[in-house]
Amino acid sequence: MKAIVANGTGGAEVLEWGEQPRPEPGPGQVLIKVAATSVNRPDIVQRQGNYPPPPGDSEILGLEVSGTVEALGTGETAFKVGDRVAALVGGGAYAEYAVAYSGHCFHLPDSVSMVHGACLCETYITAYLNVIELGALADTETVLLHGGGGGVNTAAIQIVQQLRPQCRIIVTASSGKVERVKALGVDDVIDYKSTDFSEEIRNLTGKRGVDVILDHIGAAYLASNMKSLALNGRLVLIGVMGGIKAELNLAMMMVKRQQILGSVLRSRPVDEKTAIIARFAEAVVPHVAAARIEPLVSDVMPLKDAARAHQLMESSGHFGKIVMTIDS
Amino acid sequence: MKAIVANGTGGAEVLEWGEQPRPEPGPGQVLIKVAATSVNRPDIVQRQGNYPPPPGDSEILGLEVSGTVEALGTGETAFKVGDRVAALVGGGAYAEYAVAYSGHCFHLPDSVSMVHGACLCETYITAYLNVIELGALADTETVLLHGGGGGVNTAAIQIVQQLRPQCRIIVTASSGKVERVKALGVDDVIDYKSTDFSEEIRNLTGKRGVDVILDHIGAAYLASNMKSLALNGRLVLIGVMGGIKAELNLAMMMVKRQQILGSVLRSRPVDEKTAIIARFAEAVVPHVAAARIEPLVSDVMPLKDAARAHQLMESSGHFGKIVMTIDS
Repeated sequence: MKAIVANGTGGAEVLEWGEQPRPEPGPGQVLIKVAATSVNRPDIVQRQGNYPPPPGDSEILGLEVSGTVEALGTGETAFKVGDRVAALVGGGAYAEYAVAYSGHCFHLPDSVSMVHGACLCETYITAYLNVIELGALADTETVLLHGGGGGVNTAAIQIVQQLRPQCRIIVTASSGKVERVKALGVDDVIDYKSTDFSEEIRNLTGKRGVDVILDHIGAAYLASNMKSLALNGRLVLIGVMGGIKAELNLAMMMVKRQQILGSVLRSRPVDEKTAIIARFAEAVVPHVAAARIEPLVSDVMPLKDAARAHQLMESSGHFGKIVMTIDS
Repeated sequence: MKAIVANGTGGAEVLEWGEQPRPEPGPGQVLIKVAATSVNRPDIVQRQGNYPPPPGDSEILGLEVSGTVEALGTGETAFKVGDRVAALVGGGAYAEYAVAYSGHCFHLPDSVSMVHGACLCETYITAYLNVIELGALADTETVLLHGGGGGVNTAAIQIVQQLRPQCRIIVTASSGKVERVKALGVDDVIDYKSTDFSEEIRNLTGKRGVDVILDHIGAAYLASNMKSLALNGRLVLIGVMGGIKAELNLAMMMVKRQQILGSVLRSRPVDEKTAIIARFAEAVVPHVAAARIEPLVSDVMPLKDAARAHQLMESSGHFGKIVMTIDS
């Protein structure tokens, strides 16, 4: 089959359109004929050589696909050949065919296009798991989301708007994206390039702070995040783009009964991901089917242009997801 | 009434046996004729001037009492005059009479002495809240408890043994207390003075780590605590005796899906403490009534000797609780 092959590790130019053996579905798995996939930030880190796939997963890049079921592993009954599905995969999405655990797939509603279907797993499941479940955002609370027009951030905004409609949503964005984030219907947007966001949070919340923060920056934001948290506030840490090590004020954290919750999706055990995806499919996918949640698509390009797609993400030139399609 | 009066802040010598006005119970409160109270570590910090009581609570030291109900606030029906009770108070326990919210009292079983009753609130509720509820220790898990013969630590050992009997309990203790901690029936004791406990945890758990850590040390232990935590492990932080600020490795925390949970008991809202104590009274007090849980008492002395009691705690000469009684 055709697939994106990484010619070593490094810049986007290592990604080439090449040949790879077509994978075989094992027990509990399905083979998906891929219609579309999308770029996620971890793809970049993996391409650079800093985020190897979990043992047993494909070495090919890519964490999510939409497509149709092409073949079933032994004993598979939840899906049948020809079903339209979306799937979270540990790797292997940048290809004509990808293997997924059937517990990591869900039926793609007829009302949802393959392009949108390719955006529903990695970012939406990450947002749902970490804001709604782990962060335990309650409906009277305030959530701070970092990352302007990024995939996880825009997914989190939409999920909170549907599942916790009374929540106050505050988002940080770079100057150039403030207006577009505002247009998503959030309560407040903080331009993180012109102000210290923790000062702004203090002003916006009357010194109270926010209840949940979803953060992918890590070290560079830790002190400001902790300052921005209210009593009983939860910082959910899903990335360390801004560094790994930072000083923590433990006394403040104790007195304010705050929590830091580390979380990743990809390396969780298969059964745990199956359970998360089942809950996600029940809580979120109906909103997608009814178009109350619709992925923001920044660009659509052919999968063979994956190098260009990576360059676009690395330049932060996108707003929403970068989707890559395969002509069948 | 007679009470311990702090003549300014400072060393144990500021504590004097003096006169204070007898408090009046307000609505939702009871007045308790104190039979006994006990020394808790926060009493020392408050005496030193670094831990003021929450607004509205007594300035008199002391966080827990046993005694009999002397008078009822307006509308109080849960208790009647003469009832034997134990109570958690925000302050005011080092006195002949103390006011408590009735929701922060529970009936002291007839089988439990006043001396033991004076040890049941601050440390046992802290241990229950933070290990069982917040730390969510499950019955197949391993817990690491710091603090040898300290009150919270010995309470935590007993609570885990009764409520999570299959758990593995590992305790750190100073050299002189290792044998006495072992005699409490825990699985492993680490002499923290002779070894790096995180290395020992690694060896004891086959590199897996522990699921829950209850820590009152803070900064000095943060790195070793995080190294000692297993995948999905929870560090419950209830004190900062070993410093306030420390460097945190966020990447490790994220990849291992670890949590740091800050917690204090004293400053929680009245209603929240009422709910915690109701759950505690249901889950733990029956074990006390049946003598399956029995507080470890190190020393019993008259309340007027509070200065000596504080000196004993500060010299770490105790093993278990230091109880102070009032002759009626």
